[in-house]
Amino acid sequence: MSSGASMMAPRCGVLTVEIEHVDAVTLEKLEKQGIDCEPKASTIMIIQDKYRQKTHFSKFGIPLPDFVEVDTLSSIEKAGEMFGYPLMVKSKRLAYDGRGNAVAHDKKELSSVVASLGGFEHGLYVERWTSFVKELSVIVARSRDGSTVCYPVVETIHKDNICHVVEAPAEVPDKIKKLATNVAEKAIKSLEGAGVFAVELFLTQDNQVLLNEVAPRPHNSGHHTIESCYTSQYEQHLRAILGLPLGDPSMKAPASIMYNILGEDEGEAGFTQAHQLIERALDISGASVHWYAKPEIRKQRKMGHITIVGPSKYSVKARLDKLLQRDAYDPKKVKPRAAIIMGSDSDLPVMKDAAVVLKKFNIPFELTIVSAHRTPERMYHYALSAKERGLEVIIAGMVASLTSVPVIGVPIMTSSLHGTDSLLSIVQMPKGIPVATVAIGNAENAGLLAVRMLASRDPELGDKATEYQHDLRDMVLEKAKRLEELGWEGYTELYLKKH
Amino acid sequence: MSSGASMMAPRCGVLTVEIEHVDAVTLEKLEKQGIDCEPKASTIMIIQDKYRQKTHFSKFGIPLPDFVEVDTLSSIEKAGEMFGYPLMVKSKRLAYDGRGNAVAHDKKELSSVVASLGGFEHGLYVERWTSFVKELSVIVARSRDGSTVCYPVVETIHKDNICHVVEAPAEVPDKIKKLATNVAEKAIKSLEGAGVFAVELFLTQDNQVLLNEVAPRPHNSGHHTIESCYTSQYEQHLRAILGLPLGDPSMKAPASIMYNILGEDEGEAGFTQAHQLIERALDISGASVHWYAKPEIRKQRKMGHITIVGPSKYSVKARLDKLLQRDAYDPKKVKPRAAIIMGSDSDLPVMKDAAVVLKKFNIPFELTIVSAHRTPERMYHYALSAKERGLEVIIAGMVASLTSVPVIGVPIMTSSLHGTDSLLSIVQMPKGIPVATVAIGNAENAGLLAVRMLASRDPELGDKATEYQHDLRDMVLEKAKRLEELGWEGYTELYLKKH
Repeated sequence: MSSGASMMAPRCGVLTVEIEHVDAVTLEKLEKQGIDCEPKASTIMIIQDKYRQKTHFSKFGIPLPDFVEVDTLSSIEKAGEMFGYPLMVKSKRLAYDGRGNAVAHDKKELSSVVASLGGFEHGLYVERWTSFVKELSVIVARSRDGSTVCYPVVETIHKDNICHVVEAPAEVPDKIKKLATNVAEKAIKSLEGAGVFAVELFLTQDNQVLLNEVAPRPHNSGHHTIESCYTSQYEQHLRAILGLPLGDPSMKAPASIMYNILGEDEGEAGFTQAHQLIERALDISGASVHWYAKPEIRKQRKMGHITIVGPSKYSVKARLDKLLQRDAYDPKKVKPRAAIIMGSDSDLPVMKDAAVVLKKFNIPFELTIVSAHRTPERMYHYALSAKERGLEVIIAGMVASLTSVPVIGVPIMTSSLHGTDSLLSIVQMPKGIPVATVAIGNAENAGLLAVRMLASRDPELGDKATEYQHDLRDMVLEKAKRLEELGWEGYTELYLKKH
Repeated sequence: MSSGASMMAPRCGVLTVEIEHVDAVTLEKLEKQGIDCEPKASTIMIIQDKYRQKTHFSKFGIPLPDFVEVDTLSSIEKAGEMFGYPLMVKSKRLAYDGRGNAVAHDKKELSSVVASLGGFEHGLYVERWTSFVKELSVIVARSRDGSTVCYPVVETIHKDNICHVVEAPAEVPDKIKKLATNVAEKAIKSLEGAGVFAVELFLTQDNQVLLNEVAPRPHNSGHHTIESCYTSQYEQHLRAILGLPLGDPSMKAPASIMYNILGEDEGEAGFTQAHQLIERALDISGASVHWYAKPEIRKQRKMGHITIVGPSKYSVKARLDKLLQRDAYDPKKVKPRAAIIMGSDSDLPVMKDAAVVLKKFNIPFELTIVSAHRTPERMYHYALSAKERGLEVIIAGMVASLTSVPVIGVPIMTSSLHGTDSLLSIVQMPKGIPVATVAIGNAENAGLLAVRMLASRDPELGDKATEYQHDLRDMVLEKAKRLEELGWEGYTELYLKKH
């Protein structure tokens, strides 16, 4: 903190920080002089020193990777034996965007890793290596009265330790979202003062959520909120520190993705690359460019960011692909919006008609075998996780009681009772368990019904559905015209020849 | 335009205006000196003079209310005879927010109305009174290469001739939206230069769309775009005049409503009223406050505005009611999201169960009688207009081929065939005509299915649907527990007593 800032402080109603690397001792002195600092100097002090931060959160029962302070080569070797390799070695202070972190892959590398971090004199600690499946982040706002609101959980995707892409909301099950939100909220409630905080988290393979670190300010993982949420993280920070009611943190659009413009080449070449990217962004629907106008470009420096907001995860990812001129995502990796499930592969000749319709309307879907009778456990888990996995409609039967996702039932034609057994078993559901049943063997209609349901929140799809309806009408009108032209006798002759 | 502005002009890459009441002659001179003015001085000149504006648009075949120039008492009396009363008398120039307009209710009022407008010397014209059902507005952006994009049609609601509320999108049929967009686009294409334009329109009782007037700049009816559209009208104006690609004008959230903060009392009292309103807005989800910080408050002066964005028209209207502390909208006036239609009132004992469910989930719906057999024409028009009227799901049968809105069929129990005739006639639809059929007489499930469909774009509703599912499960578990406690004999005894 400059002396200018501390001279200005007495004239401020409330003092806040835009970065935690400030002179927290001066901040504390100002507090003692009666200056209202939000968040509190104590919070900045805890967060500045990453080791102290870990110790603090550990005391409050927040789940963390194991960690220990090291101050000699022998103590770091001991830690290596305890935690195994690779071993994460971290500076206690001034670590930012991957700086101040280094990895030792075996005991031999320890001394060079310590040297690369400036030796033990600036303070080091080590962490057990966390093999996470995703990195998540939750922006938490805390008001002066201590109440909190949490933004939707996002996934942060790093490139060389620097945040590169943020996907909102994160594609993780609801229970992981709840867990992440709880960990984040608990962590922030253990700190003093008002403001917006970012809680960076690891999601481990065994579905644990561990705290990585906290930033006591609006954060890169919350930049998307400017365009995608009712209240941006910046407005929220002001609301929080000024004692205004906290705003609604939820998303006003279904999906958004933020892409950091990182410096590639230095100098003019770097600016040219960035400008080309921005030029492409201007042509992409829902894309907003934020260029920070930094005077110099450096490799890996955050020069700006682009947020793309859209009607679905699928569409914002496709738009990012277009922006980056890369091939579209592997369709196998695209999250399905619809599912077709069959009790047996013998249903495929019928059920494929639903698949044909979904494909025609470009709706990502999955098709699999799940039998209520023969694989009850699989059915149970399938239905239970359907909503969490983002499915919006299921074409099948029998699973309605386990999911709140709309289910469309297709009765399969049986040889013994011509499908009436199947029809009645699907359509005659008890009260409270609705299944949208279509005609016996008419999976095409099941597909069309799914399209109509999905169209309600996707205007483009709605237009296509209307067009399809018109095509059907035109086909019949075409036939009628032909019948009138040929007369009924000529048409009958032609019809019998064709069928 | 001040001399300062004309001195600055040569140093500008492009010159634009934020209001049309500028010195257009100077603008034209600057153009002749090679300054790039967008839109062109010719456009500003046409728009400044409302009579000239009407003449211009009339020449290009844009539908307008009838109008005629008047310059003497006898000519205005003649116009009164021609157009009838009430007669709209307008100043040609400097008319803004209702100023420069006056209404003569009969011939006797003409001279005082003319006097109130400053006499004939400043230029007057009269317009045939338009009894409109709604006022609409379309923001059109026109790029330097002449291409245009149009924002969604909005409804503007005026109070004492001043825009008070803007609803986006407007609640009018799709064909009216198309018509309004076409008129607006055609009008702007007749003008020269790039930029954002607002086209204010009247929707008449006989579904005509007439142009009222054009503003050659971002406009009050487009303020909502800041929060609700992918590209705000301000960013769009810059894109247009700078020759960048035009941005996507569509809405990223389903609905928004803008409320102008108009000065009530003058002085301190006025500020206090406004501040109380802003304080309430801070507590309303999705509300963004824009306070213009004008130094003085005057009656009816636009002091700021509040935009509320939300997941449905219903929710943003309810939030505006809360903001204005007025009673909720008459539920009869709330636009239904779902419809329950019956072939006959004898179906009511069954179909009411669907109504009960929709009511429970707080979904606005309509319930009416439409018979495919007995009122085919009514059925035809009903189904055809369903989507346009905003219906998202219909509970009934038989109408699927005329609408792309999802249809849920409830087979009604018949005395002769126990409802199997009804079931088969609804479920066995031909390919291309999907109807989501539920069990015979089970309208409750039809209601629940409708809820699940609507929940796909309404997270709050989704949570309620999941909760309902859990309640059902808990009810059964409760019964199971009781059965285990009482034993099967005790439970049977109790059961037989109750049923």
